[in-house]
Amino acid sequence: MATVRGFPHDVIGMRRALHRFPECGFLEYRTAACVAERLAELGYDLRIGPEVMRADAMLAPPTAAAIAQAQQAALDMGAGPEWIARMPEGQTAVVADMRRGAGPVTALRFDIDALPVAEAESDAHRPFREGFASIRPGRMHACGHDGHTAIGLAVAAALASPESRWRGTLRLIFQPAEEGGRGALPLVEAGVVDDVDLFFAGHLGCLLPSGQVATAANGFLWAVKQDVIFRGAPAHAAMAPQLGRNALLAAAAAALGLHAMPRDGDGVTHVNVGTVRAGTARNVIADHAVIEMEYRGETEEILASLAKRVDDIVQGAARMQDVAVETIPCGRSIGIAPDREAMRRVAEAAGRIGVGSVVEEWPIGGGDDATYFMRRVRERGGHAGYCLIGADLSAGHHAGTFDFDEAALPVAVRLFTALVEGA
Amino acid sequence: MATVRGFPHDVIGMRRALHRFPECGFLEYRTAACVAERLAELGYDLRIGPEVMRADAMLAPPTAAAIAQAQQAALDMGAGPEWIARMPEGQTAVVADMRRGAGPVTALRFDIDALPVAEAESDAHRPFREGFASIRPGRMHACGHDGHTAIGLAVAAALASPESRWRGTLRLIFQPAEEGGRGALPLVEAGVVDDVDLFFAGHLGCLLPSGQVATAANGFLWAVKQDVIFRGAPAHAAMAPQLGRNALLAAAAAALGLHAMPRDGDGVTHVNVGTVRAGTARNVIADHAVIEMEYRGETEEILASLAKRVDDIVQGAARMQDVAVETIPCGRSIGIAPDREAMRRVAEAAGRIGVGSVVEEWPIGGGDDATYFMRRVRERGGHAGYCLIGADLSAGHHAGTFDFDEAALPVAVRLFTALVEGA
Amino acid sequence: MATVRGFPHDVIGMRRALHRFPECGFLEYRTAACVAERLAELGYDLRIGPEVMRADAMLAPPTAAAIAQAQQAALDMGAGPEWIARMPEGQTAVVADMRRGAGPVTALRFDIDALPVAEAESDAHRPFREGFASIRPGRMHACGHDGHTAIGLAVAAALASPESRWRGTLRLIFQPAEEGGRGALPLVEAGVVDDVDLFFAGHLGCLLPSGQVATAANGFLWAVKQDVIFRGAPAHAAMAPQLGRNALLAAAAAALGLHAMPRDGDGVTHVNVGTVRAGTARNVIADHAVIEMEYRGETEEILASLAKRVDDIVQGAARMQDVAVETIPCGRSIGIAPDREAMRRVAEAAGRIGVGSVVEEWPIGGGDDATYFMRRVRERGGHAGYCLIGADLSAGHHAGTFDFDEAALPVAVRLFTALVEGA
Amino acid sequence: MATVRGFPHDVIGMRRALHRFPECGFLEYRTAACVAERLAELGYDLRIGPEVMRADAMLAPPTAAAIAQAQQAALDMGAGPEWIARMPEGQTAVVADMRRGAGPVTALRFDIDALPVAEAESDAHRPFREGFASIRPGRMHACGHDGHTAIGLAVAAALASPESRWRGTLRLIFQPAEEGGRGALPLVEAGVVDDVDLFFAGHLGCLLPSGQVATAANGFLWAVKQDVIFRGAPAHAAMAPQLGRNALLAAAAAALGLHAMPRDGDGVTHVNVGTVRAGTARNVIADHAVIEMEYRGETEEILASLAKRVDDIVQGAARMQDVAVETIPCGRSIGIAPDREAMRRVAEAAGRIGVGSVVEEWPIGGGDDATYFMRRVRERGGHAGYCLIGADLSAGHHAGTFDFDEAALPVAVRLFTALVEGA
Repeated sequence: MATVRGFPHDVIGMRRALHRFPECGFLEYRTAACVAERLAELGYDLRIGPEVMRADAMLAPPTAAAIAQAQQAALDMGAGPEWIARMPEGQTAVVADMRRGAGPVTALRFDIDALPVAEAESDAHRPFREGFASIRPGRMHACGHDGHTAIGLAVAAALASPESRWRGTLRLIFQPAEEGGRGALPLVEAGVVDDVDLFFAGHLGCLLPSGQVATAANGFLWAVKQDVIFRGAPAHAAMAPQLGRNALLAAAAAALGLHAMPRDGDGVTHVNVGTVRAGTARNVIADHAVIEMEYRGETEEILASLAKRVDDIVQGAARMQDVAVETIPCGRSIGIAPDREAMRRVAEAAGRIGVGSVVEEWPIGGGDDATYFMRRVRERGGHAGYCLIGADLSAGHHAGTFDFDEAALPVAVRLFTALVEGA
Repeated sequence: MATVRGFPHDVIGMRRALHRFPECGFLEYRTAACVAERLAELGYDLRIGPEVMRADAMLAPPTAAAIAQAQQAALDMGAGPEWIARMPEGQTAVVADMRRGAGPVTALRFDIDALPVAEAESDAHRPFREGFASIRPGRMHACGHDGHTAIGLAVAAALASPESRWRGTLRLIFQPAEEGGRGALPLVEAGVVDDVDLFFAGHLGCLLPSGQVATAANGFLWAVKQDVIFRGAPAHAAMAPQLGRNALLAAAAAALGLHAMPRDGDGVTHVNVGTVRAGTARNVIADHAVIEMEYRGETEEILASLAKRVDDIVQGAARMQDVAVETIPCGRSIGIAPDREAMRRVAEAAGRIGVGSVVEEWPIGGGDDATYFMRRVRERGGHAGYCLIGADLSAGHHAGTFDFDEAALPVAVRLFTALVEGA
Repeated sequence: MATVRGFPHDVIGMRRALHRFPECGFLEYRTAACVAERLAELGYDLRIGPEVMRADAMLAPPTAAAIAQAQQAALDMGAGPEWIARMPEGQTAVVADMRRGAGPVTALRFDIDALPVAEAESDAHRPFREGFASIRPGRMHACGHDGHTAIGLAVAAALASPESRWRGTLRLIFQPAEEGGRGALPLVEAGVVDDVDLFFAGHLGCLLPSGQVATAANGFLWAVKQDVIFRGAPAHAAMAPQLGRNALLAAAAAALGLHAMPRDGDGVTHVNVGTVRAGTARNVIADHAVIEMEYRGETEEILASLAKRVDDIVQGAARMQDVAVETIPCGRSIGIAPDREAMRRVAEAAGRIGVGSVVEEWPIGGGDDATYFMRRVRERGGHAGYCLIGADLSAGHHAGTFDFDEAALPVAVRLFTALVEGA
Repeated sequence: MATVRGFPHDVIGMRRALHRFPECGFLEYRTAACVAERLAELGYDLRIGPEVMRADAMLAPPTAAAIAQAQQAALDMGAGPEWIARMPEGQTAVVADMRRGAGPVTALRFDIDALPVAEAESDAHRPFREGFASIRPGRMHACGHDGHTAIGLAVAAALASPESRWRGTLRLIFQPAEEGGRGALPLVEAGVVDDVDLFFAGHLGCLLPSGQVATAANGFLWAVKQDVIFRGAPAHAAMAPQLGRNALLAAAAAALGLHAMPRDGDGVTHVNVGTVRAGTARNVIADHAVIEMEYRGETEEILASLAKRVDDIVQGAARMQDVAVETIPCGRSIGIAPDREAMRRVAEAAGRIGVGSVVEEWPIGGGDDATYFMRRVRERGGHAGYCLIGADLSAGHHAGTFDFDEAALPVAVRLFTALVEGA
């Protein structure tokens, strides 16, 4: 069996090794291979790729070229070809089961993807200063999922130990593409949590200070991720600009209009046009523009109200320039609150491992498509929670200078371990 | 000597062969190799690359990676490695001299570059229907420079023939990077036309119908090409958007503001934001945006007035988002009118070859950095002209459906030949 | 003594009489005259105009012409000239005291101003259908302050009755210009609440249903109201548009930019550009533009962060058009929470009068400059509350179809009466 | 007969008297009364108001209130009530005929309206310094029509003199509402020039220096003037902004979009959003916005192309905010060139009166709805010209500091007199 070159065993070491090689959504080949190999070594039963992900539920999957490139890069880093072969079309999930007699099915979810953010190259930024910054330009673990993955592997090791006392079935879900809200649904649709009694996910940081644990994240927002494509007509920018239909100006007006959508007196909203790519040449009227955007709302009703406005804005901006417009769905997530039973268990586990400060609820601010798992588990009679593990941050999530207090990692490992042992 | 594979000899065949393999500014390696090889075969003395281009006058040269890729692509198409080797850093000009005793130095300029435009894939588009459409996605000869290059080679052959009667020195200048106004100045600065007595350039099409020749293009505009880079700060789009400084919205406001600059009661103006590239991820406040833009004016004064406004707009748009902004000069061209003596000679030559309809002046609408040659020649006491060869068009210059009536090609060949023979 | 013609005595009648004649901030001459006359009849000691308002604390006072016009309109409606004479420069506040021996000083605040909103002329709109709609085009009691004023007068009558049992000093404050946050501060600065032990204000509606009372409004936002004036240069729009400096486009870019300010992950924000007035003629480049705007934030820190962005946006928009810009402060309000003692008293009073449903806190959504009174009272050792009296609405506050369930009026009268009697 | 108080007889005096009392389109009551009274004194046969203007061809007539106010202001200035009575609904045209036997019908057109521009109050501005600046705030003769009117009256006096030698019929047309292109068509539709053999109009200034005359203005643009009304829904800007539909932002986006319309490679275009009026209150989502705009093109085809774009932009901007939009036509003018015979006569007359410098054609830059007269005269077999009388300017037309060299006035008087005497 091929070996992922030099992959460490301690949680901080694993986090740093993962940090160096960030992979974006549905392209986490080297990460998934590391995970699978380690879990197999620990004796877990593995299901990988298409076995646990429904391809038809994958929104905005990568191109074949991007997949081939990511696979090659993973192989070049020493990923085992047998793992890569099992994830043919961006299905980079790994689900690991371990059974210890009768008892509840407890599932833990860990997300593994990185972001297309350029990591800061400055001595003030610890990953750079200490030599574990991203080696892949323009990609970065800027949301702590490197930590989440490392925590999951450390928890897997702890619970696989004979000393660890628990009964029933343990299921570890290493999910791709949490960013953008694309990765959970294909797993849910494949039935991965249909028999789960207890489900937990969690997140580092989120402005909760080091040393604290929150029994529940609240404020999960409903969200839509989509691309908008404007198609116009090119023309010589000086000889006959009047013959062009300007997709770039349509995108610019749409971007400004989208950010100018009204706040909602009934609850939180967010909107972001994250990228614009428009035009081909300086002296040609731009005939093509693509924007990547998202919008979020505190309730399903607010999301629906935003959806109407977003549609009006992109249609209107297109009409202003007489260009065609198309909207491509790329991700969704739903808002759901952790349930009381799950919160009780987190509080109990945090107490058991000696966490000094346990807060009841803490606003997560953003979203996490773990909510799809949570909804499915609850619909089928189980309990579902989402906790936060406090970690001081060097900068906000998604910033190029993001980093977190690694002292939170062993706390998280103990917390998840205790959750299973107490189930 | 390596041979450019299957390069034809007739002007229409040459045009189509060039059309299939479009190369953008300072990357015309295969085109230049074809040109050089043919001219060498015809007995011209060649100067290539750094011999005729001052690198320090090349605005916005391509990256080393782009150059390497273009060189390899040219080699793959059969370009002679000895030619490629002589054009190390994007200096893809070829200047060919032939001397027949004492007499004036007559220079003809032909531009060879293509555009980053996607060619139409439709049976209504002749190059596609007849199988000579671009084989390079996103690049296209959408302004007729394939025709210009073919004309230049055919003129070279005609004038090299012993039957052709002329005296003095003939200089053929195959210039890269006319689009964007970047290619002429490095040649001028290298002194390529310092000893020229008569200079001619020309253009196909420009809305002049097939069968006609214009003795002069007028309305050459002064132009500036520049990139504008906005640099802000990223942030999580939902957890803490207030921490971001949004470069994308700065670029959007700048694009709208630039296109909304006032017309000028004193003469023609044009402006185009041709491309925008902004942001990295959907759920991150965009911290980076680049726009490629140009602006043009009928006089140097109008250009200066626009320059002031452009600066105000990009500075103001940056201030609105509290982002930094930088402007990178990428090209310039100047306005100059063909002189009377040059016009007289074009009219005389057109009459000699039997052109039915000779118009005196015809608006070119855009610009051409041939004006830098024209100014230098005139400053040193020579005459400089710029004629138009009528060609019915299928669509406007720079459109993905651009094509021209190839019947114009032999007319142009005869006209330029006659200009030299009459000099 | 002159009599305000036909002003009724029942609370619904008073509300409707006030509704027909809406007066905007600092111009409530007829309203204040009605109030003063009635309170004088009831035996209150009155302080009016400059006696209770510091002119130098009045932001954005009306012009002398607007004041003269409002005074004349009030006189035409039968307002007593002796009252009008006491409010020379827009100081339209009336403060009424009644003393019954030793005891606490209890103050009630009622706001009296209307909005520049056009009232709906439709049979679906009860004030129109039943004949008490505004007779003043473009002005309307669209926020219920007509009800507040009527409640205040009915409370004044109830507490002036010999049967009403209370001790100490009662102070009724009829405040102008609550909209825009301009009216409270001049009263506070004049010391009107410096000796107050208990202070209460309240609001009808705010989405609280009829039959309910909220012991506290929460979510008072910090707010800034300001005008932004852009000054450019005019020019003939066709002969020489380039000579103009376009204040209208600066205002348009600023309006879009302001609405596009990011949400804040730390709390609620709001922004509104409520009006734009720009330019003078169709064929002249607009040399002048004025926008009336406001922004609000959940905390003082968020407000400060918005202030920085607002400044960047208006400065940047001005720079884009090379126009001058000036910001005129027009109002501020602060966020403060009702205190526990005040909430307890509202709950007790609501119980005493038999309100079926008492909720503890209810989001007010907007702001109310009653917060200035509340802060001053608390700074000097008193208690300050703000309650909501539920009233079903026909449309949102500030809409042209706004109306409220008048059954709430007697509830409010009993509640405020009970608050004083229980003090 | 009533007398217009103190109206002088010399051309400069008349110009200054008119300058002090500017009246905008269709409201020129005092101006028309002065004109009518003087022409009646001189013995001309007058037709006034509805006799020479078709009401149904008056675009965007003023409101009854504005007319009543203008009439009263004119009466207050001493205008004869008998004249005011003959112009009931804004029909402020005066057409005066004088007949001297058989011969051609020669018509001269003079425009009389002012602009809604605030006149500069600075000693650098001669009308202010010398005490003849506008006494009406916000209105100004900023295009020289005060001069045109004075010229017309002086020409009327000169040609009414027994010494003046001419035959046929002289028709003097004093036209209202030239600005905005509204005044000529109602006169043309009433048949005022149907029998005219020779028609002349003219303009002072237009960047032609003092002492020169241009035999023709060229570059008359086709133009459309229109208002665009956006209607949305109001809402409380903080409690429920999501319920609003924001007409102000629609207008802002439209204004930016309209100014950003592409230039046209086929000829001159212009666009201006001259005014925006939006919203009613700072804390209410603006439910109403009106923009006054115009666009112009060198040819009827360009105008049609712009019309399509304008419609797309206003419809698209409305869609972006989900507001209704309506376009109100407010004026049109057409492009037409003066004919050769008319030019010849201007050149001849200019020579006869000793003008030193006669240029053949001079760009007018803007438009003048005199073109409607010109087209009708030519359609019926006559000749029509438009000359320019050079006059140094202190600032561009329509600026608040506009003023012209009054030495041009007697030149213009002699030129028009000579045109009639030479007819």
